[in-house]
Amino acid sequence: MRLRKVKNAKEILQACPIYIEDAKKNKGKWDSVFPKKQSIHLEIGTGKGDFIIALALSCPEINFIGMEKESSVLVRAVEKIKDQNIPNLRFICEDASTIEELFEKEIEILYLNFSDPWPKNRNAKRRLTHERFLNRYEKIFKGENKIFMKTDNIDLFAFSIESLSNFGYKFKNVTLDLINSNFEGNVMSEYEKKFSSKGIKINRFEAYKSN
Amino acid sequence: MRLRKVKNAKEILQACPIYIEDAKKNKGKWDSVFPKKQSIHLEIGTGKGDFIIALALSCPEINFIGMEKESSVLVRAVEKIKDQNIPNLRFICEDASTIEELFEKEIEILYLNFSDPWPKNRNAKRRLTHERFLNRYEKIFKGENKIFMKTDNIDLFAFSIESLSNFGYKFKNVTLDLINSNFEGNVMSEYEKKFSSKGIKINRFEAYKSN
Repeated sequence: MRLRKVKNAKEILQACPIYIEDAKKNKGKWDSVFPKKQSIHLEIGTGKGDFIIALALSCPEINFIGMEKESSVLVRAVEKIKDQNIPNLRFICEDASTIEELFEKEIEILYLNFSDPWPKNRNAKRRLTHERFLNRYEKIFKGENKIFMKTDNIDLFAFSIESLSNFGYKFKNVTLDLINSNFEGNVMSEYEKKFSSKGIKINRFEAYKSN
Repeated sequence: MRLRKVKNAKEILQACPIYIEDAKKNKGKWDSVFPKKQSIHLEIGTGKGDFIIALALSCPEINFIGMEKESSVLVRAVEKIKDQNIPNLRFICEDASTIEELFEKEIEILYLNFSDPWPKNRNAKRRLTHERFLNRYEKIFKGENKIFMKTDNIDLFAFSIESLSNFGYKFKNVTLDLINSNFEGNVMSEYEKKFSSKGIKINRFEAYKSN
């Protein structure tokens, strides 16, 4: 994403009631952050928040955390919801590489939507489905590991199928053309809306791994 | 494939020196069919033979078996090679459902190229990557199971990723656009030539499973 810096990003985030600044202190007790104790789903790279906001509004029986490393991007998500009360949604501004310091056996589903493909081989380890990240995710899940991925990037998709299968994940609901598939209840991210309107096919999988 | 029946298909096949009529009698001893004892690769649904013939000619250090259930189709493959001596290639006219009666711990790689996608859900069990077939393949491999698949059909590809991963296979060299990928040494089937010339993307994976 080409990033336009927002000068007072920090102040805008701090003024948002569902933004959590010191996220690491909630490790192992994210339940206490939400009014209701219910399943927690996490999106890494939540961007401008279209996906996680829509999902949170349509699924009040689930708690959602939108994680985005760029404060100037997260500001766009925060601005979208500022007048709405979404009790089951929280935003945090953190980098995926710190995820082990943020969560412990409390995430039910991890969403990776239109993650940076890092196309050059020398950057493969930066991809969010690289073994290095899969190792980090091992301790965040409550019960079975569940990673739901969407991307328009066929190389990232292929890489992720390889990486996750070799890590022990199995796949369900794989599609190479999400819009024209039988999958119901799809919630679109801002990227997805843009790509789909241009006729670019969206790839999706659900990956599961028992512990 | 729309099938045009060839009247004297049986006679044409029998006249071909590398066609093997009573294939089942070679179960467990396919080594003896070839002049050289070397790895055996099998293609199920060999069609008009473009893929297996080109591969056999370029890899004399491997023995190849092209299996096709329709005699009228296999005739087209046989007609292509009739004047050539290809010592490391044999054709058989058999249905995939009988594969356990044909091979036992002697295949190194199984190729599935542009297999029938059987698009209707009620026909899922006819797909060559359905669990029913994966169970049948369990006993044909020598050492690690290796299935290399190519298809233009995105639904069959997605189904196969699911089916094989849930059966314990892991993936390598996955691509959703074979022609534009880094994969070297690709040998094209007749379908692949047709589809690629129309700009249709070819999906490919290599799947591995230890026994």
